[in-house]
Amino acid sequence: MEQKLKHIQDMAVDNGSKIVLLVMDGLGGLPLKAGGKTELEAANTPNMDKLVMHSSLGLSEVVSPGFSPGSGPGHLSLFGYDPLLYNIGRGVLEALGIGFKLQAKDVAIRCNFCTTDENGLITDRRAGRIPTDEGAKRVELLRQIKIPGVEIFVDPVKEYRFAVILRSEGLSGGIEDTDPQLTGVPIKPITPTNEAAKKTAEILTQFVAEGRKILANQLPANNFTLRGVAMDPGLPKFPDIYKLKAAAVAVYPMYKGVSRLVGMDVIEHTAETPAEEFEVVKEYWNQYDFFFVHVKKTDSYGEDGNFEGRVGVIEQVDKALPILLDLKPDVIAITGDHSTPAALARHSWHRVPVLLAAKTVRRDPNTSFGETACITGSLGSIKHVDIMPLILAHAMRIGKYGA
Amino acid sequence: MEQKLKHIQDMAVDNGSKIVLLVMDGLGGLPLKAGGKTELEAANTPNMDKLVMHSSLGLSEVVSPGFSPGSGPGHLSLFGYDPLLYNIGRGVLEALGIGFKLQAKDVAIRCNFCTTDENGLITDRRAGRIPTDEGAKRVELLRQIKIPGVEIFVDPVKEYRFAVILRSEGLSGGIEDTDPQLTGVPIKPITPTNEAAKKTAEILTQFVAEGRKILANQLPANNFTLRGVAMDPGLPKFPDIYKLKAAAVAVYPMYKGVSRLVGMDVIEHTAETPAEEFEVVKEYWNQYDFFFVHVKKTDSYGEDGNFEGRVGVIEQVDKALPILLDLKPDVIAITGDHSTPAALARHSWHRVPVLLAAKTVRRDPNTSFGETACITGSLGSIKHVDIMPLILAHAMRIGKYGA
Repeated sequence: MEQKLKHIQDMAVDNGSKIVLLVMDGLGGLPLKAGGKTELEAANTPNMDKLVMHSSLGLSEVVSPGFSPGSGPGHLSLFGYDPLLYNIGRGVLEALGIGFKLQAKDVAIRCNFCTTDENGLITDRRAGRIPTDEGAKRVELLRQIKIPGVEIFVDPVKEYRFAVILRSEGLSGGIEDTDPQLTGVPIKPITPTNEAAKKTAEILTQFVAEGRKILANQLPANNFTLRGVAMDPGLPKFPDIYKLKAAAVAVYPMYKGVSRLVGMDVIEHTAETPAEEFEVVKEYWNQYDFFFVHVKKTDSYGEDGNFEGRVGVIEQVDKALPILLDLKPDVIAITGDHSTPAALARHSWHRVPVLLAAKTVRRDPNTSFGETACITGSLGSIKHVDIMPLILAHAMRIGKYGA
Repeated sequence: MEQKLKHIQDMAVDNGSKIVLLVMDGLGGLPLKAGGKTELEAANTPNMDKLVMHSSLGLSEVVSPGFSPGSGPGHLSLFGYDPLLYNIGRGVLEALGIGFKLQAKDVAIRCNFCTTDENGLITDRRAGRIPTDEGAKRVELLRQIKIPGVEIFVDPVKEYRFAVILRSEGLSGGIEDTDPQLTGVPIKPITPTNEAAKKTAEILTQFVAEGRKILANQLPANNFTLRGVAMDPGLPKFPDIYKLKAAAVAVYPMYKGVSRLVGMDVIEHTAETPAEEFEVVKEYWNQYDFFFVHVKKTDSYGEDGNFEGRVGVIEQVDKALPILLDLKPDVIAITGDHSTPAALARHSWHRVPVLLAAKTVRRDPNTSFGETACITGSLGSIKHVDIMPLILAHAMRIGKYGA
């Protein structure tokens, strides 16, 4: 564990206070026209605005200026793990994204179906972007492969993408990608990067050989490449560091998976809307100190370039917010894991608005929650990795540093 | 010395300019009611407000967001030492706090009287919190202990706390705490953490054995534990790094001690009030380039939860400020070593207001000194460790970095 997390662990006390970390995925936005309002500013959010009167606002850098974070680094930093030090491999993220319950000894691989010609040279790295059901049929075929001493899971992801998970003792993530990122060249051989990965390399070499035989007649997806071979990074556990009984309430598998990786309990539920998710928090309120609540649709609409869709989700969250506020959390923080402005239709590097409400805040003169207000917030310019220490401090859960 | 301090040392020039660093301990505050004023904002401070017209304001993070600094890290960072890299051990801080003039070869230990039963198990880790005079009587008894080849100092601190300082060649601070932090268990044996601490461990083992014989009939303080065994950390010296002839004017021993550790001259005086301290600065004005002036009571009243007391001390400082301003320092910085809001009655993590007055500042539009004004100050969001470089720069004492 890095030194700073060790300090926090040493200072953390369990005083029974209750905390909600409400994450609207990709919350940070942009106006559609210069001088206009962002999605958060355009949304009618009377409950959040009222909460601002008891809050400290700030703008937060998720990873580093100019970096547009993926979901992995975005959430690691939200949970207090420096995303430049800690890392969740792509294979693991892919497995988590489909809801696979990864074990510590598993190796997860992100795979792409591709097309190769009679000489084994790649002609299409994405197999003509076959539809998801076509991908799934071929995944079904690959499931026939049996290798002694190892349990193999093959699962479809989307279109030409699928995931392979190997379960055995003595595996390692130290395998190079086999995708050459070019056409007209052969797929690279399985290459271990260190001695410890030799067993994994042998298994994967065998898997690839058998898979190619099985797919020989399955054009355009007659071959596949391996990327991001990775294991559970063995992160220091969130409840151990912060002395919190922590639960995640999320709808999408990826966010449940990341929460599970850091050691949170993941509450299984059938909620879909923000209001339904908040009701789950209410139901479990007495069983946990800390709730990570994840709202996905702000990001999905952002990726689609749908400004009004984002505004609508933010308004849904605001309307349902009293369900959380009525529980009287000692601290509630509202933020995102990165920006996904509809204007850019992708994750962006823009800083993310943060609202931190508690009895212990030093208020600022703002009266509404939005990117522009956050510029003059009393939290100032912060980093995502510092949101957890700030939350704990405001919950009076951190003692003194040094005498 | 860390790289950044080396750079500063390389760039520093002595141009004869004069600097005052005025520290109101625990200056950062909170309103008593949401939307109210902090102590600094509530205080009537016409002189500071006038100074703001020639100042740059900012809010400063002392250690790291959410960290509530102790006096050690607070002052190290004020003096430009990264408090996550440099560290003053607890034993040393305790010795400094009682005004003990620590030498480089000394080992200092913070000790607690405690109660043990007939089986040697701890029944009270604080010996019933015996009053200070009862503690002092037992300290007197422990002073009988003689060990050949080592000078031993035993001094009372407060209630059940006392300090032991060993002076000899070849000592080391590498000794584990003997306080198990639990009752119903025995005191831990003296355990060195490395080879170099073996001699120290032998001396302490003997000291503890003799001490226990002496205290056998001194219930409830019939035993004692050792914590924070430490030596002078050998910090790079402030006058060497910054090329400043530096003096400390402080009332409390702890702050004199920390100043001495970093190599400042400590001016001995009988001043008690801020005005009296400022007169000491005036008296020594021609002998030094840099004055660290420490006002304690803002912190003491904060710890007591006394909002009006804090306001009163800030007003005393403001009223006396012309004594310093009339000396026409090239740079005067006014700040704190952390926040101690009366509302929380403890050191807190809230950022600390900074006022930096010099002919060379880029002013900001503020007209008074307070936490809210500082949010929009032209210094922005800074770190305490950067206050010294900023002070030197504004005194035109730092050259160019790189060609």
